[in-house]
Amino acid sequence: IDTKLPKVGTTIFSVMSQLAVEHKAVNLGQGFPDFEPPQALRDAVARAMGEGKNQYAPGIGLQSLREQIALKTERMYGRRINADTDVTVTSGATEALFAAIAAVVSAGDEVIVFDPAYDSYEPAIDLQGAKAVHIPLTVPSFGIDWQQVRDAITPRTRMILVNSPHNPSGAVLSSGDLDELAAIVRDTNIIVLSDEVYEHIVFDGALHQSVLRHAELAERSIVVSSFGKTYHCTGWKVGYAVAPKALSAEFRKVHQYLTFCTFHPAQVAFAEFMASTPEHYLELPAFYQAKRDRFRDLIKPSRLKLLDVPGGYFQLVDYSAIRDESDVAFCEWLVKEGGVAAIPLTPFYDKAPNTRLVRLCFAKSDATMEAAAERLCKL
Amino acid sequence: IDTKLPKVGTTIFSVMSQLAVEHKAVNLGQGFPDFEPPQALRDAVARAMGEGKNQYAPGIGLQSLREQIALKTERMYGRRINADTDVTVTSGATEALFAAIAAVVSAGDEVIVFDPAYDSYEPAIDLQGAKAVHIPLTVPSFGIDWQQVRDAITPRTRMILVNSPHNPSGAVLSSGDLDELAAIVRDTNIIVLSDEVYEHIVFDGALHQSVLRHAELAERSIVVSSFGKTYHCTGWKVGYAVAPKALSAEFRKVHQYLTFCTFHPAQVAFAEFMASTPEHYLELPAFYQAKRDRFRDLIKPSRLKLLDVPGGYFQLVDYSAIRDESDVAFCEWLVKEGGVAAIPLTPFYDKAPNTRLVRLCFAKSDATMEAAAERLCKL
Ligand SMILES: CSCCC(=O)C(=O)O
Ligand SMILES: CSCCC(=O)C(=O)O
Repeated sequence: IDTKLPKVGTTIFSVMSQLAVEHKAVNLGQGFPDFEPPQALRDAVARAMGEGKNQYAPGIGLQSLREQIALKTERMYGRRINADTDVTVTSGATEALFAAIAAVVSAGDEVIVFDPAYDSYEPAIDLQGAKAVHIPLTVPSFGIDWQQVRDAITPRTRMILVNSPHNPSGAVLSSGDLDELAAIVRDTNIIVLSDEVYEHIVFDGALHQSVLRHAELAERSIVVSSFGKTYHCTGWKVGYAVAPKALSAEFRKVHQYLTFCTFHPAQVAFAEFMASTPEHYLELPAFYQAKRDRFRDLIKPSRLKLLDVPGGYFQLVDYSAIRDESDVAFCEWLVKEGGVAAIPLTPFYDKAPNTRLVRLCFAKSDATMEAAAERLCKL
Repeated sequence: IDTKLPKVGTTIFSVMSQLAVEHKAVNLGQGFPDFEPPQALRDAVARAMGEGKNQYAPGIGLQSLREQIALKTERMYGRRINADTDVTVTSGATEALFAAIAAVVSAGDEVIVFDPAYDSYEPAIDLQGAKAVHIPLTVPSFGIDWQQVRDAITPRTRMILVNSPHNPSGAVLSSGDLDELAAIVRDTNIIVLSDEVYEHIVFDGALHQSVLRHAELAERSIVVSSFGKTYHCTGWKVGYAVAPKALSAEFRKVHQYLTFCTFHPAQVAFAEFMASTPEHYLELPAFYQAKRDRFRDLIKPSRLKLLDVPGGYFQLVDYSAIRDESDVAFCEWLVKEGGVAAIPLTPFYDKAPNTRLVRLCFAKSDATMEAAAERLCKL
């Protein structure tokens, strides 16, 4: 069998989760909460199944859910969007990212991605016959060097893919970053794909700088988000994309043939829950900030050096005081000998720098954090 | 915005369902049951949500579910497959079809499809930069003229896409057809993609001729099926693909970046329900045959001419005694003036023949069938 994706193996998330099970390690690798979605939300799914919402939902998503997404967008980012034309519900953010790339990017095009980059971006670009142009984020603050971006633009640049809060680093874009981005794409036909799945997990009183706050960028962006991250149900696989009408129309053409539609009962439940309990996402920053701070306190006695975490639910740590080896080797050692699964950064780079950083997920119960910290402090 | 899919509009299924709502028509268009999945299955989903199965499932699908699929494959088709390496759970059959095409078909390749062809096939092929080569099925039996297939093979033929029971016609492949297909692909690198979502809906005592029954074909095929069709829950969007190990590995590379995984609680539920209640799918032929026969009896007094239905849950009818116009025009008239939504065949053809056929779905309760029949008999 010839392969169309010679660089791709099994995603590091599956590999590490598998190793975590084998070695009975505490799994701080793959990013998912070990606590539950709200009871009312689960009840609403069960109710929807009982009320006959078991056949196809509209391919673009349930109208009531699209309306809630539009309401939230206005409340959070001050932008009015049209629920009928600008919002599409997807089978997770992963599908939304793939559909956006497949809809916009053609063979021969270039897409600018910032390394470390979430691992689904490049295969999706490759499958279009296009080329990912990798720009490394600065270390250790994981910011964008905009001069490098300007230098990387060519007539074939079709898309710039940004991710804030950033996975794996937790770095966030500033409004100044958005202005820089807007200046670069102005008067070009470059589309911005903005992965904002951690949009509600931003700390220390900061505001999430969604591209939807920025009128000029919003005109030429596809913004992707995730119910899994916001409602503690990564296994439900519901996400969405927001884009202006013409761009959404292209997005939908692809989406309708990728998955057509998404688990119907959960769409009913999210629409109800968002309407009844908007405080859930309003309170999410405080909820996760408490987890972040607790986790940092717990591992402070260890020999790991903690980087700052402005957003998201991952803590980067420098392990160089413990072992002098690559991050992949360290993660293998850590899961086997240390009893903790982490995620190395190398798989998210085209050319990985020689940093000694790994990612730990703190979307965990106190008990899990404590069990992990006990092990980490012994290293 | 440039479009990568100039030929694509909104899928006819969404268009007709929308018109059905607008005109308060009985919806026999888009294929979905208007009755519910088994109560035990819905209860199992609710239970799984209560038992903490709300985070990512393994990307390839829950092991217990893959094992049930392997068991079923052995029981139904006498083929032992490896649940670990040969089965991948997907977000509906639509995702499986797209992933199979994206994994196997490259720019410049040709894929043979038989018209009328399910409308997701060609856009998925187009997005690879490949070309769909259309071969019309014979009318009115919707069989394959294998000489035409032999004549259409070129060095660039990479895939042949078959669909049995066939949507929209209900035609089924015979074991002789499988032998013809095997002879054509022998000693080539052509992969067979077999869309068998109606595998359990075959009538009059016939056996479903899955390509999995055919040792030589099974070696080079990706077989796609759907829990939605089998368990009356098209809105849950769970499907799967079966392929030999090396082919599954390529399939999984794409799948993991298309959707990564599928609604976890339903996977738990399907695994439990398949283990406890295998009679569900064993009894499906009789269940749907009764519906088919009831529907045919009900519309026999109408001026519609009924074609034979060997499988699936659609009835083709010839409306030429009622109106002399294209099938698209007839469906528009029918939903507005006749109060019944149907599906025209033209959208599934590259070059539609001048037939006067439309598709009616009989996966419906008695009350729905009766309401539709009353209207159809008045035409
Ligand atoms: C789709 S599995 C990976 C989950 C995730 O977003 C992460 O761990 O970064
Ligand atoms: C995905 S909507 C179409 C459902 C279907 O398979 C059909 O009606 O043929």
